[in-house]
Amino acid sequence: MAIKTVAQYIESIRDKREVWIDGERVEDLTTHPHIRTAVEMGAMDYAIAQDPRYRDLMIEIDEKGEPYHFCFKPMMTREDLMRKREVVQVTARTCFGMPGGAKFTGIDGLNSITAVTRRMDKEIGTSYAPRVEAFRQEMKANDSAVAVAVTDVKGDRSLRPSKQRQHPDFYLHVVDETRDGIVVRGAKVHISTSATVHDIIVIPTRAMLQDDTPYALAFAVKPDAKGLIHIMAEHEVADDANDLDSPLAAHIYTSESLLVFDDVFIPNDRVFLKGEWRYAGQFAYMFANYHRASADAYKSIENEMLVGAAALMAEYNGIAKAPHIQDKLAWLAWYTETTDALGRASCFDCSEDRELGVVFPDPVYSNAAKFFFAEHYHQAIKHLVDITGGIVATIPSSKDLLNPQIGPYVEKYLAGKEGVPTEHRFRMIKLVKDICSYFMQGVTLHGEGSLAAQRMSIRATSDWARYISAAKRAAGIREEKPHPSYGSLLDYPAWTWRKEKNII
Amino acid sequence: MAIKTVAQYIESIRDKREVWIDGERVEDLTTHPHIRTAVEMGAMDYAIAQDPRYRDLMIEIDEKGEPYHFCFKPMMTREDLMRKREVVQVTARTCFGMPGGAKFTGIDGLNSITAVTRRMDKEIGTSYAPRVEAFRQEMKANDSAVAVAVTDVKGDRSLRPSKQRQHPDFYLHVVDETRDGIVVRGAKVHISTSATVHDIIVIPTRAMLQDDTPYALAFAVKPDAKGLIHIMAEHEVADDANDLDSPLAAHIYTSESLLVFDDVFIPNDRVFLKGEWRYAGQFAYMFANYHRASADAYKSIENEMLVGAAALMAEYNGIAKAPHIQDKLAWLAWYTETTDALGRASCFDCSEDRELGVVFPDPVYSNAAKFFFAEHYHQAIKHLVDITGGIVATIPSSKDLLNPQIGPYVEKYLAGKEGVPTEHRFRMIKLVKDICSYFMQGVTLHGEGSLAAQRMSIRATSDWARYISAAKRAAGIREEKPHPSYGSLLDYPAWTWRKEKNII
Amino acid sequence: MAIKTVAQYIESIRDKREVWIDGERVEDLTTHPHIRTAVEMGAMDYAIAQDPRYRDLMIEIDEKGEPYHFCFKPMMTREDLMRKREVVQVTARTCFGMPGGAKFTGIDGLNSITAVTRRMDKEIGTSYAPRVEAFRQEMKANDSAVAVAVTDVKGDRSLRPSKQRQHPDFYLHVVDETRDGIVVRGAKVHISTSATVHDIIVIPTRAMLQDDTPYALAFAVKPDAKGLIHIMAEHEVADDANDLDSPLAAHIYTSESLLVFDDVFIPNDRVFLKGEWRYAGQFAYMFANYHRASADAYKSIENEMLVGAAALMAEYNGIAKAPHIQDKLAWLAWYTETTDALGRASCFDCSEDRELGVVFPDPVYSNAAKFFFAEHYHQAIKHLVDITGGIVATIPSSKDLLNPQIGPYVEKYLAGKEGVPTEHRFRMIKLVKDICSYFMQGVTLHGEGSLAAQRMSIRATSDWARYISAAKRAAGIREEKPHPSYGSLLDYPAWTWRKEKNII
Amino acid sequence: MAIKTVAQYIESIRDKREVWIDGERVEDLTTHPHIRTAVEMGAMDYAIAQDPRYRDLMIEIDEKGEPYHFCFKPMMTREDLMRKREVVQVTARTCFGMPGGAKFTGIDGLNSITAVTRRMDKEIGTSYAPRVEAFRQEMKANDSAVAVAVTDVKGDRSLRPSKQRQHPDFYLHVVDETRDGIVVRGAKVHISTSATVHDIIVIPTRAMLQDDTPYALAFAVKPDAKGLIHIMAEHEVADDANDLDSPLAAHIYTSESLLVFDDVFIPNDRVFLKGEWRYAGQFAYMFANYHRASADAYKSIENEMLVGAAALMAEYNGIAKAPHIQDKLAWLAWYTETTDALGRASCFDCSEDRELGVVFPDPVYSNAAKFFFAEHYHQAIKHLVDITGGIVATIPSSKDLLNPQIGPYVEKYLAGKEGVPTEHRFRMIKLVKDICSYFMQGVTLHGEGSLAAQRMSIRATSDWARYISAAKRAAGIREEKPHPSYGSLLDYPAWTWRKEKNII
Repeated sequence: MAIKTVAQYIESIRDKREVWIDGERVEDLTTHPHIRTAVEMGAMDYAIAQDPRYRDLMIEIDEKGEPYHFCFKPMMTREDLMRKREVVQVTARTCFGMPGGAKFTGIDGLNSITAVTRRMDKEIGTSYAPRVEAFRQEMKANDSAVAVAVTDVKGDRSLRPSKQRQHPDFYLHVVDETRDGIVVRGAKVHISTSATVHDIIVIPTRAMLQDDTPYALAFAVKPDAKGLIHIMAEHEVADDANDLDSPLAAHIYTSESLLVFDDVFIPNDRVFLKGEWRYAGQFAYMFANYHRASADAYKSIENEMLVGAAALMAEYNGIAKAPHIQDKLAWLAWYTETTDALGRASCFDCSEDRELGVVFPDPVYSNAAKFFFAEHYHQAIKHLVDITGGIVATIPSSKDLLNPQIGPYVEKYLAGKEGVPTEHRFRMIKLVKDICSYFMQGVTLHGEGSLAAQRMSIRATSDWARYISAAKRAAGIREEKPHPSYGSLLDYPAWTWRKEKNII
Repeated sequence: MAIKTVAQYIESIRDKREVWIDGERVEDLTTHPHIRTAVEMGAMDYAIAQDPRYRDLMIEIDEKGEPYHFCFKPMMTREDLMRKREVVQVTARTCFGMPGGAKFTGIDGLNSITAVTRRMDKEIGTSYAPRVEAFRQEMKANDSAVAVAVTDVKGDRSLRPSKQRQHPDFYLHVVDETRDGIVVRGAKVHISTSATVHDIIVIPTRAMLQDDTPYALAFAVKPDAKGLIHIMAEHEVADDANDLDSPLAAHIYTSESLLVFDDVFIPNDRVFLKGEWRYAGQFAYMFANYHRASADAYKSIENEMLVGAAALMAEYNGIAKAPHIQDKLAWLAWYTETTDALGRASCFDCSEDRELGVVFPDPVYSNAAKFFFAEHYHQAIKHLVDITGGIVATIPSSKDLLNPQIGPYVEKYLAGKEGVPTEHRFRMIKLVKDICSYFMQGVTLHGEGSLAAQRMSIRATSDWARYISAAKRAAGIREEKPHPSYGSLLDYPAWTWRKEKNII
Repeated sequence: MAIKTVAQYIESIRDKREVWIDGERVEDLTTHPHIRTAVEMGAMDYAIAQDPRYRDLMIEIDEKGEPYHFCFKPMMTREDLMRKREVVQVTARTCFGMPGGAKFTGIDGLNSITAVTRRMDKEIGTSYAPRVEAFRQEMKANDSAVAVAVTDVKGDRSLRPSKQRQHPDFYLHVVDETRDGIVVRGAKVHISTSATVHDIIVIPTRAMLQDDTPYALAFAVKPDAKGLIHIMAEHEVADDANDLDSPLAAHIYTSESLLVFDDVFIPNDRVFLKGEWRYAGQFAYMFANYHRASADAYKSIENEMLVGAAALMAEYNGIAKAPHIQDKLAWLAWYTETTDALGRASCFDCSEDRELGVVFPDPVYSNAAKFFFAEHYHQAIKHLVDITGGIVATIPSSKDLLNPQIGPYVEKYLAGKEGVPTEHRFRMIKLVKDICSYFMQGVTLHGEGSLAAQRMSIRATSDWARYISAAKRAAGIREEKPHPSYGSLLDYPAWTWRKEKNII
Repeated sequence: MAIKTVAQYIESIRDKREVWIDGERVEDLTTHPHIRTAVEMGAMDYAIAQDPRYRDLMIEIDEKGEPYHFCFKPMMTREDLMRKREVVQVTARTCFGMPGGAKFTGIDGLNSITAVTRRMDKEIGTSYAPRVEAFRQEMKANDSAVAVAVTDVKGDRSLRPSKQRQHPDFYLHVVDETRDGIVVRGAKVHISTSATVHDIIVIPTRAMLQDDTPYALAFAVKPDAKGLIHIMAEHEVADDANDLDSPLAAHIYTSESLLVFDDVFIPNDRVFLKGEWRYAGQFAYMFANYHRASADAYKSIENEMLVGAAALMAEYNGIAKAPHIQDKLAWLAWYTETTDALGRASCFDCSEDRELGVVFPDPVYSNAAKFFFAEHYHQAIKHLVDITGGIVATIPSSKDLLNPQIGPYVEKYLAGKEGVPTEHRFRMIKLVKDICSYFMQGVTLHGEGSLAAQRMSIRATSDWARYISAAKRAAGIREEKPHPSYGSLLDYPAWTWRKEKNII
């Protein structure tokens, strides 16, 4: 039974986990007006995996002949990365541009701890990797939904974990230790799907120094662990949001939690980093490598929807032939396809660490893609709102459209181009409203790391030696050891020729 | 009693007007959870006018010694425009960056019909201007709240009013005429405050051709006129929105209506244009001149709030000293002050039509200001979200903060820099969320005309002859009649000198 | 002798071709101070092809065992396109970021006429393709340097070829016809390397209508044909430009000509289109497909130099650690690598026309890359000038640096960071100056087609059906025939679930 | 004779000053092919001042009835600043958008030392102000052309003056001192017009600390002082540049020098700061205040030319009616007028220091204007090149146009729209080329301070307390001492009303 059905998944998350939203403890996740949306998103991953059409894509068979979800396979080849990208994109197409709700982020956490614990074990003789492997096998057998918790609440962002002044808990840390395990305190924030999964992987959010030793911490925890409290983000729509007024938001609740660890016990076999502070940053870095590529994958699908909405609004408004509209549509198609090409390049031209036996997305390309779509997102929604018109701000409720007395007026007067049902135009305007929400802005800019994080990554991983050789060669500055791409080139003849003639 | 009190205003709008929201007919505007917010905004204009501190700014005395609201005075001097700007800015500061809800747009409509009917009467011998004057006196005596209805629903935007295919009512038009007046049908959209005022001024939204004669139409109408239906925009927040979760949206509902004219009778003395199609565009143009300057005035106040929110979020997050944050804050201050300076220039360097006895804001500057703030708005909110962090998308509800059981966790973990109460940070994050809403995007881009409209206006009103003289002079191309700024300049000596030497 | 040596190439272009520059007829191309630079660039292609290190890349062996230049091979597989990209990039690295001067554009013309004549022959029974094949064989045997002439001078850009008013010659056209061939008149502009090649391929610059029949014209011509006049662009540097003051411009002269056809006779076997106006646009379109991908290839190499220059100037000025500089450097690396990834994607994910037996670069990606680098070029040079400092505008001549009396002052005071020779900083500033020249701006924006051309291509070739399906699905609008990517997806469970509960 | 004639000016600068360009010592400034251009620009200031039409604008009468140039009057009122702005703009219109060459920057230096020495004398009892006054009187009587030298060469930009490692001379400093004066060593860079004036004012380029005492230095010096060496920037055009090929560059040479102080003696009465390091930054700051406003003044004139060139190129190419071209032209007009309005605001809303008896431009607005035009300059030239076409890079020399044999071809084929002489289009393309040169880019970004400098100034001088009050009020955070603009506002009624009802 390694592949869960939708019903099994839904039943399996009904436990004692402590979940709060809007000031109330949630009794049943699967019936709460908002959280059921998150559960539905999670369930889709299982529905897709069960569907015969996606078997080849989603299902692997292990050495014992047991089927398991492909995501639990370590990333060992370019093909693995390309296939994982396909998994994300199929799921995103199914879920209106949003990534899957059962394994999307968690798996990137698993891939991160796989790589880094192998490195630690090799380099400093720890034995974390077997624990990770055991954990993987357990999740595989259970077909777990899995989340990852990375971002600490951070307090004063200018201070390192151990230097915070108000209290020591702004970054998650060990407060007690027994023979069997550790006790941790702190809180992680923006934790997608933590309330609706079976396992949560917890890793550091940043590089650390020696002082920060108690904060150098990675482990796995169950969502119903004692002392673990999920305080969920306020949903952007009201409880009674419907598909007509909120076509996207009523379907999507990625259910980010403020995840409070109020002295939670973690047994030793689930601890993957404890005090080896030099490795703290690597967990975050390796997670980012995988996860930015995942983001690139679903964002180009989300952008398909965005550009489609713009094209349809132009059509419905009767302005599709206006040159400045055509320019904006071309720009939006460019925005979409460039995101896609860059994301694909990051998987296709992946990096390989042979010693550890893993591949990971090329960091320059995965960051270039993330930077590209986040940097231009506000331009994209500006174009979208520009094309849609002020009606995005002033459209009545669907209750007006459906009201027998005034509905006919709305129907008559919100019509656009001949042949387009008003309902279609109405729905599309509401979709535009959802696409340019504060939520989408926050997620696009900050999800998978801020613009500053991408700039830093690009700076750190670009081939500066190559750039410098190019500039020095052009400026006529000789280098001792030029970059290989430049070191073996023929001399430009002008050099020889002119020197013969004493012209420099 | 020419200056109404708040209580008088509130009482005075309790009539039979047909107002719908969320599929329901509103019985009492003043108690409906959303519409009361709109009423409160309108009431603020009366509260300010009643306050002794603002008497000099807000109150004029007429020839009979009666006080009346300054806004009913025709704009005759630069000082009038600068004072009107001050009125808008004081009101906007009071109302969290939003413009006043009782007279803000309507007055610009009054100023438009004042100027254009004077011109029509002079040029083609109509006698509309005295009607406008009588209407002005009545509003003055009543201290009316007044709205303006400009934008028709438009149907297929590529077709003129008389060329629409599905039905002839996408632009408001005359469907019947009696000795006493006319009957009109159609619908106007995005009509701010129509449901909470005493008078609505209706003008054409665009220039027209002869075919469009029945659509060339301007008049005034009472909000409770028979057949007039206000279908209000869905509010961006839920009924029970509170100040903590929605500091801006819970205070502000500018209450745009889809305003349906279901065969409304307009008596002759309230008709200001009927069929003189050549003048249709001038109403829209002159309204835009006044109203873009009004928008410039309140937007720089709204931007004060935006840049302040960014500065405080940087402070609360402990990142105020990070160079890239400082750059963004400088940019935002620049954004704010440039909007203000341009808006001020449009009033200070106003245009004057001596024959008509009116002044109006300089169209280049008023459009430059509107274009500036709308063009850069998405950059501004991108910076704001960037500084605030992903928490803008994932913050819990205030009900969590206030809950005795989990509130302390939220309090502890959403703290920022030492010394900043978590509640302050919480409130500021929620303000940021409201500032970057779909509503603000729609209003900023499209309110007072789209970017394309500003570009068109700038193109139409710029001094191209001056630019061309500048370029021709520099390129050495002689002009017959250069622009005055260039025609009388001294010859550049190089010309003379070099020609003597036969160097060109 | 299918692969020419440098000496053979140089000797081979000494013929009677009529070349003018700076108002003078050029007697010997190989010694003229500017044109020798162009000849040197062309010669580099031969030098590289002769070099053993590049044999595998550059040389093909034909069925008779004869070596020939790879560029003459028709593009039949993805590998061909990827290899051609590599050829361009190696050459560009050798030539300071500039593309090769012997075959770079001409080959894309050859690939265009190959594909389109095959299509014509199939579709309308002409027999142009064999002529192209014979021409190819001749060039192959001769190892020709080859140019392509596309852009007509156009006169009034708002008028089609046959509608021009001043004279009929703004677009190249047939003025006479004999049994042996045709006589053509007109002029092509921006024709790179026309003066230094063996063959020039001439194709239409745009789609045409029936009226334009005499203008629907493609053929090949020799550079020394009677009546063919090459009027070369003014070079951006003076005759005595040296490597120190103009490190780029003194090495590079891409030698664009205004190519005048003063009644030039073209024999029938070199005519590839004559009046079949429906196919005129396809020559231009197919050329653009190949050539934008070629441009993408060399631009990412040019950008390596640009970002390297920025990095070195930051280093030399001692500001490499300033956060706002680091942000700009990250942006420039992103600019470079994104150009590269998109260009690569256009070749890797190429389009195939099996019937014609050719592949060509994916038009969306090749245009996306070209649009990307051209759209952002001015941002890139702004960053570069910002980092370099005002010294880019005010640096003295190298003659001051080399002067024994004042050179020491220049040496002392233009020093930057300790350890950096002033000469290096001096050279790098001069390189920056050359990179942001008017020439580079013109070439980057307009070479291989304007931004408007890329927008049009992206609009024309993007998968709009897919975008529209994405948006309709998200908005809940049912489609009869959704795009395959969307048609077979699982229903989102919320739909079913909520419909059961009568919630929409 | 307080107002010099052109002839007197030209004669007066023929002295022993040591000026170098292109590796050669210049014997006669007034006949050197480049420097004569600089002299001509300087001479224009005298020509304008002599012209009766400009008498009211340019000439003041002193208490003895003597006429003197208005620029020597201290800035005491708003009207002074507005008049100075007019002086700059008239001069710039005369000189093809470039500022005047005799007093433009120097006067801003004089205004800076006037204000700061008065402050020093008041605050710390020095007696520099009378020296400045005597210097002013002497210049007034002489009608001096005057330059200012601010920017030191700086070496490693990350190190303060006294911390430089290679040598101590990267910032100008005192190396010796006698009873009569001081001896200074170092070099200033980008010093406009230093070689063609009568007096040079030297001030610090930055704030300093105590260590930097020897570098805290302001004084005046004669251009022919012993040990003072002017090494002039390489001109962007060749010696034989003509008006047809370089309409702007052949007329304009702002003649920036690397100004070397090789142990120059400065007599005490010309020393205005010597070691009072706390005041060093104020000289730079106050100069920037005045000079950015001067830059704003001429840049809007330069932009008139730029937008005019774009409009004419659109017209000449026959594309003036294309919508995307019209959008770009509107943008360029907006660019021009916004620069103008902001610059004007900085003078109109000037700051006043009553104690010192001076006014100076509002720092927020003057920096906002400078930032605006520099930030958008690359966008502007991108639009300009986009409209002009690739011909900007590939146009032949005027020698081709004028050649009797091939000139007719150029004439025929470079024609544009009917009715436009080819020569006009040719000249305009060449003007565009000059406008987007590396020189203009460097000057626009860095002249009068870099973008970073403006951001810093805007940040330092904006009214943050006002912004913060706006945000806190909107977010419902009470302040102890709100900004006056917010402190006295009425309570928003919702607050009261809702609190009564216990809704927050």
